[in-house]
Amino acid sequence: MKIVTAVAPVNIAVIKYWGKRDETLILPINDSISCTLATDFMCAKTTIMASPTFTDNKFWLNNEEVDFNNKRLNNCLTEVKKRASPKCADLLNWKIHICSENNFPTAAGLASSAAGYACLVSTLAALYEVEGDISSIARRGSGSACRSIHGGFVWWQKGVQPGGEDSVAVQIAPASHWPEMRMIILVVSDDQKKYSSTSGMKTSVETSELLKYRSEMVVPKRVKEMVEAIKTRNFENFARITMQDSNQFHAVCLDTYPPCFYMNDVSRSVVELVHSYNKYKGATKVAYTCDAGPNVCLYLLEESIDEVVTLINDVFPSSVGPSEYFRGLPVNIKNRGGLQEVLKIKADAPGSLKYIIHTKLGDGPKLSTEKSQHLLTEKGLPHTS
Amino acid sequence: MKIVTAVAPVNIAVIKYWGKRDETLILPINDSISCTLATDFMCAKTTIMASPTFTDNKFWLNNEEVDFNNKRLNNCLTEVKKRASPKCADLLNWKIHICSENNFPTAAGLASSAAGYACLVSTLAALYEVEGDISSIARRGSGSACRSIHGGFVWWQKGVQPGGEDSVAVQIAPASHWPEMRMIILVVSDDQKKYSSTSGMKTSVETSELLKYRSEMVVPKRVKEMVEAIKTRNFENFARITMQDSNQFHAVCLDTYPPCFYMNDVSRSVVELVHSYNKYKGATKVAYTCDAGPNVCLYLLEESIDEVVTLINDVFPSSVGPSEYFRGLPVNIKNRGGLQEVLKIKADAPGSLKYIIHTKLGDGPKLSTEKSQHLLTEKGLPHTS
Repeated sequence: MKIVTAVAPVNIAVIKYWGKRDETLILPINDSISCTLATDFMCAKTTIMASPTFTDNKFWLNNEEVDFNNKRLNNCLTEVKKRASPKCADLLNWKIHICSENNFPTAAGLASSAAGYACLVSTLAALYEVEGDISSIARRGSGSACRSIHGGFVWWQKGVQPGGEDSVAVQIAPASHWPEMRMIILVVSDDQKKYSSTSGMKTSVETSELLKYRSEMVVPKRVKEMVEAIKTRNFENFARITMQDSNQFHAVCLDTYPPCFYMNDVSRSVVELVHSYNKYKGATKVAYTCDAGPNVCLYLLEESIDEVVTLINDVFPSSVGPSEYFRGLPVNIKNRGGLQEVLKIKADAPGSLKYIIHTKLGDGPKLSTEKSQHLLTEKGLPHTS
Repeated sequence: MKIVTAVAPVNIAVIKYWGKRDETLILPINDSISCTLATDFMCAKTTIMASPTFTDNKFWLNNEEVDFNNKRLNNCLTEVKKRASPKCADLLNWKIHICSENNFPTAAGLASSAAGYACLVSTLAALYEVEGDISSIARRGSGSACRSIHGGFVWWQKGVQPGGEDSVAVQIAPASHWPEMRMIILVVSDDQKKYSSTSGMKTSVETSELLKYRSEMVVPKRVKEMVEAIKTRNFENFARITMQDSNQFHAVCLDTYPPCFYMNDVSRSVVELVHSYNKYKGATKVAYTCDAGPNVCLYLLEESIDEVVTLINDVFPSSVGPSEYFRGLPVNIKNRGGLQEVLKIKADAPGSLKYIIHTKLGDGPKLSTEKSQHLLTEKGLPHTS
């Protein structure tokens, strides 16, 4: 028998992926760029065991057994097996047990599928000793998962080949390239109707004329500018493009028929807060970006963290204790109220934010052979947690 | 001395005006189309008196004297005087007193400037006996005011001449062309920060790439389709294009940097309610449109009024009495709850809508020479109301 375990990071796009040109191969209509987050506070973890004694393939997700008959899962498995090392010939005939979990609440609406599939594919690739790029395999599980295969700043190139061989993620720069970069994830309380991003982007491709223009005319320019901003560590440009692209992505969702709404009034208050703060500072010190949900991710440099978190804490008072409200890297709340009054921002109702995660850039998936790390026992069953 | 009084209607766009190519002449970057509302429930009223005995020009707006030195007002006055009838030669040297009011709360954020300037210019044109098109003069007061110069369905053609002589509003069809057409205006309670539409559209023109594409590539097609839908009374197409264009206008506002938000969570709930209702009916029975604020105007045919108003009353319970909540044409609330449960729509908090105006199509400005209609006494002063 053989057992491997990996952890994989979440990534948050600064140039958004929205729209497929091929639904089956998951090929995008435009390039996208993201930052990979440290796995300390948010990550997916997967253990896979292969054994000649297993009678069935099994899959446990967040401590529940789920159907192995999942198209995306099997697409990934098939692609990995195609590229298995000759050394693993026997292994290919063994059944496998997969156990996966996220160390952050999926309820929070934080894209868990990217980390999940990046983790699954990294673990499978280790199991079958696959060589070379695996981002195009992770892409088959969930498009944005290909970006979680690398650390730091990552560029998913849409590619041109019909088979998608060249639709791969490449690293622009490692996390160490810009050590001052920080993210604050604002988890918004929300009871609005949810729109699936898979069906949402399909409807956008079918109905939004603005999406066509965006993907063909706007994104290619922005990708060039963003790569340059990252390479030269130009935060002002990095932040401006990030905000403009987040807004344009949500504009396209609104131009979709029927429209999909992902941001809510709380997300919008955060956006307005960021623009007021930057205006007050006379420079772009903070950027916001929202994905297919109301949560907001702020990008900022370490130097701004304390002032910004203090402002957020004043404008969005918590309805829970500080230890539950502030998660991740430590934050230092300074004298309250001051800046909020200067900016004349009305405080929101307590609890409109569920909690706040302070985190930083991180590396790609990590393998672990250490026994204590495995999510499966020697019998190949989940530890009853 | 000479005294004239006019009332002018509000209009609500179904193809939106957003963006000027000339700020001074108020020339738009694309055509727009609107419906003119009956003056019974919403209108502006203006009385103008000219007298050789007046020592100053004076202006009263909603019972308060305001500065006559208003650029837009004086642009309109200058343009009207240029085209004054020779018969009015003496009159041109007399000072004038202007008294204007709206019969609907301006607080409601319902575009009052369009009705206001259409009324001012109609009254001035009557005073100085101007012949021919006056929509291009009303345009100098407020762009969309040119559309309130006509009744029924109105098309503001952007024109091509640098001086704007051909940027005029023309009638597509009178109100009588589609007598079943109804509107329901949902006045949304709102304490969000307001964005002026004048500065908002200026920023959009400067920063939104999507607006450029919309005005050049999308709107011209939509205008043709909309004119056809109106002429053939094709409600399905009329409604679809109206919703798509409202959404695209707000998409462009979001693509603006910094973004302007006009719709809020209540506006969005209404949009979702309309799509659920149409899906349930298996046909497009209702359309929504939002301007530069959170209020929503629904377009629907008389046959749907009772069912839709009942649904709205269930989903958006009032925090005031029925006589204050339901305004305009009578509505007949049927058995409550039924449809809301079928559509599985959660009721909103009471009071998220301030009130509801049920109205219909109407004619253009009307002159009145009847003494009792004048807002000014024989001395040229407002009636102390």
